Amino acid sequence: MMLRFLVSLLVLASCKIAKAETTVASARASLVRQEDTIIFALIERSRFPLNSPTYNQNYTSVQDSILDFVVHNTEAVQSKAGRYTNPEEIPFSTKSLPPSVVPHCPFSQFLHPAAASININKDIWKLYFSDLLPLFVASDDDGNYAQTAAADLTLLQAISRRIHYGKFVAEAKFRENPKAFEPSIRAKDRETLLKLLTLKKVEEMVVKRVEKKAMVLGQDVNIDNDIKKGGKYKVDPSIASMLYQKWLIPLTKNVELEYLLKRFE
Amino acid sequence: MMLRFLVSLLVLASCKIAKAETTVASARASLVRQEDTIIFALIERSRFPLNSPTYNQNYTSVQDSILDFVVHNTEAVQSKAGRYTNPEEIPFSTKSLPPSVVPHCPFSQFLHPAAASININKDIWKLYFSDLLPLFVASDDDGNYAQTAAADLTLLQAISRRIHYGKFVAEAKFRENPKAFEPSIRAKDRETLLKLLTLKKVEEMVVKRVEKKAMVLGQDVNIDNDIKKGGKYKVDPSIASMLYQKWLIPLTKNVELEYLLKRFE
Repeated sequence: MMLRFLVSLLVLASCKIAKAETTVASARASLVRQEDTIIFALIERSRFPLNSPTYNQNYTSVQDSILDFVVHNTEAVQSKAGRYTNPEEIPFSTKSLPPSVVPHCPFSQFLHPAAASININKDIWKLYFSDLLPLFVASDDDGNYAQTAAADLTLLQAISRRIHYGKFVAEAKFRENPKAFEPSIRAKDRETLLKLLTLKKVEEMVVKRVEKKAMVLGQDVNIDNDIKKGGKYKVDPSIASMLYQKWLIPLTKNVELEYLLKRFE
Repeated sequence: MMLRFLVSLLVLASCKIAKAETTVASARASLVRQEDTIIFALIERSRFPLNSPTYNQNYTSVQDSILDFVVHNTEAVQSKAGRYTNPEEIPFSTKSLPPSVVPHCPFSQFLHPAAASININKDIWKLYFSDLLPLFVASDDDGNYAQTAAADLTLLQAISRRIHYGKFVAEAKFRENPKAFEPSIRAKDRETLLKLLTLKKVEEMVVKRVEKKAMVLGQDVNIDNDIKKGGKYKVDPSIASMLYQKWLIPLTKNVELEYLLKRFE
């Protein structure tokens, strides 16, 4: 016990995970890298068909569907292992999660504390299962329900991280030019703020790049092929770009907006 | 309770996940698809640096390292959700895992029952942490230990599935030409069996394709780029091909060999 306490002190003393400050450029680079993670997760979920028993409340001998069981309990494990001490990570579970058992090595306090109150995972969850999932998986059943639920969770986490990363984007944009934002924040002028946060050209480029990425990362690579027009992809590239255009980009901007509106609270 | 029982009966009655029989061609197609999963998992683990506290026995207030804690408990969740009823999946945890809480919808009995006794996850685990991991991650610490352990587990699972898939490969090869294998199996002639299981040209092609895949899937995709020679990749392609050449291919063949030796038990 005493030894463990001393080790903890030592750990805290050597706790140096300070990252470089987020800038608009570094935030953008992170979003670009996250595109690959999201597309990998889309492709990996598409290895399995829909597997509808995964989502059936009455299928298990516990009170939950396999999905709810896997999501809550996997998040509980991750929570104990410290995942949610990182402000980039937000759990989906609606039940409470156990505290971390690892020494708290604080992540840099880049965001305004009000950031913690912004969480649209409920909307993301609904949108994922009602609108996105049916678009890109086959309607069969291969029996791999546990793996299916794990693949759903990985993809949900990647999407949630991208959307809530809007907090970092907004803070970086604000710090680079506070005077441009302050009047509209104080006036709670959503329309002007949304205009300030919108770069149509960048958004169009993101959507195009995501479609290209889904082609590159989802093709069947052979020793001598290059991307063929009209080739077969593991996930339809137009679904990846639609995901960004219709949901990820607007929802990220929504998070940016909500964050800025709380910036002086 | 009664309702739940009736639902279970209904579920079992509608239990039809019979897959098409594995053939040498379909097994090969599965191995090709698994290459992408392994490379995605390599790339996703490389998002994090080494994060050595993940592996430190004394870092948590439980008795385990974060890695051991995350692996055992995530596998326990997956086990309850039925993952290990699929003979393609083998857990790493050395402690016992809880039984499945989902109705048992049996996977097709393609393998000889002795297959269940073949498990080299202990060797894979050792090799992964001592030889592979240090080759492709930066030596820093970014504090994301829970996510690091989860990424390790995903990659370990993908590697283990590939290697143990050798059982399916061996059974398919055997069924396609039992007469070619039977004498050497009965004589326990490992050398001849290994020769029968070895197709040098196919192996060389796999290694080359994996290197190409690591280039394609690990590049920074831009709207107008093609793969550049000497470009920057998320994971060094030569590490992916080395992983296959030095470990995955020989260990898969080892599993094939051990499986065949038990084929008439």
